[in-house]
Amino acid sequence: MSSLIERQLLERAAAVIPGTIYGHQNTSTHWPGAPQFFSRGEGAYIWDVNGKRYIDLLCSYGPILHGHHHPKVEEAVQRQMRLADCQNTPSPLIVDLAERMVSIVEHAQWAMFMKNGTDATTLALTVARAATGRNKILVAEGAYHGAAPWCTPSLHGVAPADRAHLIYYRYNDIASIDQALAEAGNDLAGIIASPFRHDAGLVQELVNPTFARHLRAQCDRNDALLILDEVRCGLRLAFGGSWQPLGVMPDLSAWSKALANGYPLSALLGNARARQAATEVFATGSFWFSAVPMAAALATLQVLEEEDGVARMHRSGSALVAGLLDQARVLGLPASVTGHPTMPYLCFEGEVDREMTTRFAQGCAQRGLYVHPRHNWFVSTAIDEKLLDEVLGITGEVMGGL
Amino acid sequence: MSSLIERQLLERAAAVIPGTIYGHQNTSTHWPGAPQFFSRGEGAYIWDVNGKRYIDLLCSYGPILHGHHHPKVEEAVQRQMRLADCQNTPSPLIVDLAERMVSIVEHAQWAMFMKNGTDATTLALTVARAATGRNKILVAEGAYHGAAPWCTPSLHGVAPADRAHLIYYRYNDIASIDQALAEAGNDLAGIIASPFRHDAGLVQELVNPTFARHLRAQCDRNDALLILDEVRCGLRLAFGGSWQPLGVMPDLSAWSKALANGYPLSALLGNARARQAATEVFATGSFWFSAVPMAAALATLQVLEEEDGVARMHRSGSALVAGLLDQARVLGLPASVTGHPTMPYLCFEGEVDREMTTRFAQGCAQRGLYVHPRHNWFVSTAIDEKLLDEVLGITGEVMGGL
Repeated sequence: MSSLIERQLLERAAAVIPGTIYGHQNTSTHWPGAPQFFSRGEGAYIWDVNGKRYIDLLCSYGPILHGHHHPKVEEAVQRQMRLADCQNTPSPLIVDLAERMVSIVEHAQWAMFMKNGTDATTLALTVARAATGRNKILVAEGAYHGAAPWCTPSLHGVAPADRAHLIYYRYNDIASIDQALAEAGNDLAGIIASPFRHDAGLVQELVNPTFARHLRAQCDRNDALLILDEVRCGLRLAFGGSWQPLGVMPDLSAWSKALANGYPLSALLGNARARQAATEVFATGSFWFSAVPMAAALATLQVLEEEDGVARMHRSGSALVAGLLDQARVLGLPASVTGHPTMPYLCFEGEVDREMTTRFAQGCAQRGLYVHPRHNWFVSTAIDEKLLDEVLGITGEVMGGL
Repeated sequence: MSSLIERQLLERAAAVIPGTIYGHQNTSTHWPGAPQFFSRGEGAYIWDVNGKRYIDLLCSYGPILHGHHHPKVEEAVQRQMRLADCQNTPSPLIVDLAERMVSIVEHAQWAMFMKNGTDATTLALTVARAATGRNKILVAEGAYHGAAPWCTPSLHGVAPADRAHLIYYRYNDIASIDQALAEAGNDLAGIIASPFRHDAGLVQELVNPTFARHLRAQCDRNDALLILDEVRCGLRLAFGGSWQPLGVMPDLSAWSKALANGYPLSALLGNARARQAATEVFATGSFWFSAVPMAAALATLQVLEEEDGVARMHRSGSALVAGLLDQARVLGLPASVTGHPTMPYLCFEGEVDREMTTRFAQGCAQRGLYVHPRHNWFVSTAIDEKLLDEVLGITGEVMGGL
């Protein structure tokens, strides 16, 4: 049941906000009485408007990489805030951050910064079209690349022309790529792909390395650009780019979410081949050059590197996944955890309408652990061994009662 | 001449950023040696990386409404930062801010928040299409509505399909509206217009009230939506919406820039007619619900109201324009200042390639006043009578030497 304070907020919101809350942060279908408003975050913890505390395993859907208010990030933010944020020009930090991204992400030779993940993915398509002088882009069926008319999951208000030049393939399905390539003919500008298949509400699927290499080879053969959408995965799968461990280098990669530990920033990175086109396209925004999110990003990257954060998140994510599967096995529950260990996705085989996962998430929330019933969770570097024990204590108890 | 520190930054930027700096904040065509990097802002002043101080009459191209670091805005920001910014859900501030916008902006009955002005204008088109089930949007030739493929001023990487449903009219030209309406036939979703014609690089033109009323009447007649792009003008022309003094109410209005005194925020406001469609469309972003920019917006609006900021900016802007024209008249210079007094646009009649305005802006910069040679300037509430005297002292001296 919602509290009085929550019910009053919901009533006021319903009067002045379409759908009460729009978009992915509407919690009305999470579980009955799921809190719609949170007040505070600190480290691995979050508090709803009733003051109830939860361990955070959603991490604001990705942006919180080092826990809320990481002291080193906040210190860098406060230092920059005393100087300036949104000015007539960038601050010198844009140069520092571009150099840093280029040094970290193996395929990248240049960087541009913007605000939304959608800004970066949309600009990637524009750059691919400008670089090739062609139109067609191959996109995976059901993949989420943002909320612009060309990619939003809803067709309300979208004109067919907005998607006239998209051709759909099935993730990890080489034959569907070849079919889409045949359809594109000599008008192929590029192929966009996520590092793995992380479509919301569906079982996740890691990339088949052969599939990734096929995308690279076909882009080379057709003189088209390979675009990696790192918005959700970036900085959790690998420090140097999510496909860097596979040795598959995209021409363009779109980043956001975890880049600045919650401060609003996205980035388009590219290689030499895409550079001239990136110089020619028109790309700008009122807040794209603001210095504070760039200061946050530099600190976020430094903490990640110094604390070997990627390896630590892999370890705690893997222990979390193993623990969940173990608890389910002992209880004979048909749990499935798919996706990358740092972004695990839980569901129960055979359940109807996510009924079991919903009860699971609700039970976790009651016991002070916040997970999503229909979206992958996110591990942060703030989850240490002690917290992981606490998390697994809660999940074990909840599974036992399912 | 650029300083050593500036030249080193430019050289490093050129290596890792396409075009050295992309978009509207590239200063390479401002005047020879125009600073490309600024370090600090405080009140009405800004400092470049060499520590040179300027009075700021560009205000970050609009966002800075109350001067940099306005104490009441910063206090609200710091208070919210100690709680949380980017969370799994919005904070209660989203309700406060939606209520506040709806109470201030006369046509609005609901509000949604996002990051870029482009997010708001693009979503406005989507809502208009969803509300009407039609496709065509009328757009003014040369108007700037953002940096998405449908509206960017450059066609590099833009596919013709991205603009397939746009029909262009000439601002303030009723006949051109009627011609565009005839072309749209029974597929008209809406008309988008700026509060006045503020195309960069061209003489500005206030709206003819008859034209504004004609847009409203034609949208009513055709059951289409009128969209006002307030991104650049919002909160400078009028507190209740830029066309509120004319009595012309849009169905949708897109806001950004000045809304949060430099913190990244935009908004789409709408009336009852557009509400169902706004509920149906998919609109979201990783940082759209962040609480800190909303705290900044609430404080920005409070300061604007308490200090009667719109009237004060109108007075100082009008005095600035009158002073500039007076100085030019005495010297026999063919200066023209167009647009709204709070967003004045200076040029010199008959000049070739903005040669005189460029020398003017350069002369001002040398004397510690920052203005743009090819874009409207922005007045803030931080410009008081004493600063205005200082500004006019500088402009008079520079005009005398042109």
